[in-house]
Amino acid sequence: MAEPETFKIRRLEISDKRKGFIELLGQLTVAGSLTDEEFDGRFEEISSYGDDHVICVIEDEASGKIAATGSVMIEKKFVRSCGKVGHIEDVVVDSGFRGKQLGKTVVEFLMDHCKSMGCYKVILDCSVEKRSFYEKCGLTNKAIQMSNYFA
Amino acid sequence: MAEPETFKIRRLEISDKRKGFIELLGQLTVAGSLTDEEFDGRFEEISSYGDDHVICVIEDEASGKIAATGSVMIEKKFVRSCGKVGHIEDVVVDSGFRGKQLGKTVVEFLMDHCKSMGCYKVILDCSVEKRSFYEKCGLTNKAIQMSNYFA
Repeated sequence: MAEPETFKIRRLEISDKRKGFIELLGQLTVAGSLTDEEFDGRFEEISSYGDDHVICVIEDEASGKIAATGSVMIEKKFVRSCGKVGHIEDVVVDSGFRGKQLGKTVVEFLMDHCKSMGCYKVILDCSVEKRSFYEKCGLTNKAIQMSNYFA
Repeated sequence: MAEPETFKIRRLEISDKRKGFIELLGQLTVAGSLTDEEFDGRFEEISSYGDDHVICVIEDEASGKIAATGSVMIEKKFVRSCGKVGHIEDVVVDSGFRGKQLGKTVVEFLMDHCKSMGCYKVILDCSVEKRSFYEKCGLTNKAIQMSNYFA
């Protein structure tokens, strides 16, 4: 009989570089190559924001691999009586772990964080194809994203 | 003969609360009411991010009123070899100052800041009606925005 799968959701740790975190991001977009020093430096930069920039991961404890990830950055505004907005970014589930609701678990973890931080809303940008997934997570489509690539 | 209009673009200053900055944001969305202490506290919080969270304003020097504003927050990522992305937010031009390219000036100021910070792209969310304005600023539509309002 196979062992039951055990997934644990938590914040990114510096040791996750060895657990396939960057390769997982490569399934979402161009991850590029990173030295350990570059990874550690960026990890420290993001960590310095504390609860205002959180990256979460789901680890498959059987294999020790990162199975899913997502991040959220809290924006402090003047509108809405100094309201805060959570910007969700870089949500991806490893192709070998899809169909297990891990993406939904990541989005819910990040939204719960935004609620606990007092955000009045959470927003994210995605392709039209991902719309129904995010609707299942409780989000709705009201606007479009515009972008300008410099490089 | 009327005096020539003089507009100056610069970063937000704490004295801009007295120059109609919050009322201008009220033309974009629900601004709410703010005490001077709340304004000053949020100003200090945002200022603590330095070049990573910049709010710019255009002041009409003849009237001493803030005529336009916009903000940008720099996100530090792991993807794209530790790339950075600029998130433009809260762009608005006072209804009495429209048709003077002030919105385009704000967006270009914020995009120039993102380039100088080494961002590989800049993104923003807007209504479908604003699409052609942002296309004139050099942005294109590639994705949709999803949102969830908690309050």
